[in-house]
Amino acid sequence: MEEITSRNNPAVKAAAALKELKERKSTGLFLLEGARLCKDAALNGVTIKQFFATEKAKEKYFSEYELLSEKAENSFLIPESVAEKLSDTKNSQGFFAVCRQPGVFREIKSGGMYVFTDNVQNPDNMGAIVRTAEAMGADGIIVNSGCDIYSPKALRASMGALLRFPVIKTDTPGDILTECKNNNMKIFASVVDPSAADVTKTSKDGGCVLIIGNEGNGISEETLSLSTHRITIPMKGKAESLNASAAATVLIWEFMKDR
Amino acid sequence: MEEITSRNNPAVKAAAALKELKERKSTGLFLLEGARLCKDAALNGVTIKQFFATEKAKEKYFSEYELLSEKAENSFLIPESVAEKLSDTKNSQGFFAVCRQPGVFREIKSGGMYVFTDNVQNPDNMGAIVRTAEAMGADGIIVNSGCDIYSPKALRASMGALLRFPVIKTDTPGDILTECKNNNMKIFASVVDPSAADVTKTSKDGGCVLIIGNEGNGISEETLSLSTHRITIPMKGKAESLNASAAATVLIWEFMKDR
Repeated sequence: MEEITSRNNPAVKAAAALKELKERKSTGLFLLEGARLCKDAALNGVTIKQFFATEKAKEKYFSEYELLSEKAENSFLIPESVAEKLSDTKNSQGFFAVCRQPGVFREIKSGGMYVFTDNVQNPDNMGAIVRTAEAMGADGIIVNSGCDIYSPKALRASMGALLRFPVIKTDTPGDILTECKNNNMKIFASVVDPSAADVTKTSKDGGCVLIIGNEGNGISEETLSLSTHRITIPMKGKAESLNASAAATVLIWEFMKDR
Repeated sequence: MEEITSRNNPAVKAAAALKELKERKSTGLFLLEGARLCKDAALNGVTIKQFFATEKAKEKYFSEYELLSEKAENSFLIPESVAEKLSDTKNSQGFFAVCRQPGVFREIKSGGMYVFTDNVQNPDNMGAIVRTAEAMGADGIIVNSGCDIYSPKALRASMGALLRFPVIKTDTPGDILTECKNNNMKIFASVVDPSAADVTKTSKDGGCVLIIGNEGNGISEETLSLSTHRITIPMKGKAESLNASAAATVLIWEFMKDR
């Protein structure tokens, strides 16, 4: 285990830079923080390039420390000052991994239930939606390029679901949705519109994709045009005040509970 | 509008101190941040003791500025350095109000649907639950002393619902639950236990209280002993991995959708 003392060490600077979306995009890497998330990554086949831990973290999370040391290509012991630089939180555990963004899972089961997030921007919402989709037994999540799923906040909010759950990242969602339609899957666009079909009364049998839109703007026109059904959450006048992830929870729940 | 220039001004120090729970408890006040939340407070009869705004905020949110200036007992123009001290966020709007915690709404309608949060600790969960309860048309929320509803994070996460929605704060939840039971209301305890009744198959007619437990420990023994029914979210093996507010969303939804 190599020791790093300076905040200006090149490995530290490169890892800290991954807190920025631009850097994550250009390198295909992301920075993971916290013993539990790092362990999740290691146990789920995520490639770990570098592992950083403070002396305190080594003692406190020794089994995770051993696992990460074994899996990482390079491991570094760091002082608290470096941990602060790498951390996205106020009280850092002092435990970090630089990981490779998982390869894209392309297989979509035509009988499965998938969630498609269309430019969901808030990382807490993004993480919560993936966590809920995994917990409720959906088959995977399709995310377009407007969703920054490897931000530290989204990773935290997902409680590791983003590292375990089948994620299909795409810059050309139209192709995937068209493929799904050709496989007789239903494409449900969730909208805030009382004239759309009531989600509780819609037949959800068979393979399907449930589209969740952006927090402020909803589903983009292009995506909407590829949907086969429009559905909504019937409410007594206040549906628009549901948080995006709460609305997604209700919708995923309605889709999954009878499957 | 009085001008403040120093971060050490007593009014500034007193307002900043309200970021701490201890101070909120001892003074009965809380600190609100952001033009929209401050406006919500002013329009919902919350007593506003002090109002602080930067020159920039005054220009950007002029109608809210006028409203708050009129409603507040004292108004102060502050520099950015003071806004930073008061703010709980990285990019402050420079718009703050010190408010009195609303009086306790004691009236519980025996035919109504209430959510009871039993030591829900995470302020994001607390805020999200109140927001969802309001959006779905519940009649009010009962919170015990383990829920810190006036923290800056909870207020933000609730999107102002905490300022609009009937909130019953109590140090003696047992009394309230007993009163509800005496009024023939059902008391539903939500638990992660496959042997409990399936929430989708439980009769939810009439007045009721839905108890949501603490993130890690669930519902306390004392509160549980006062419940009349135990219910659970039927899941394919992963219910325990649902976030507390996602679980609450599913439960509140199941209670409210047929009312």
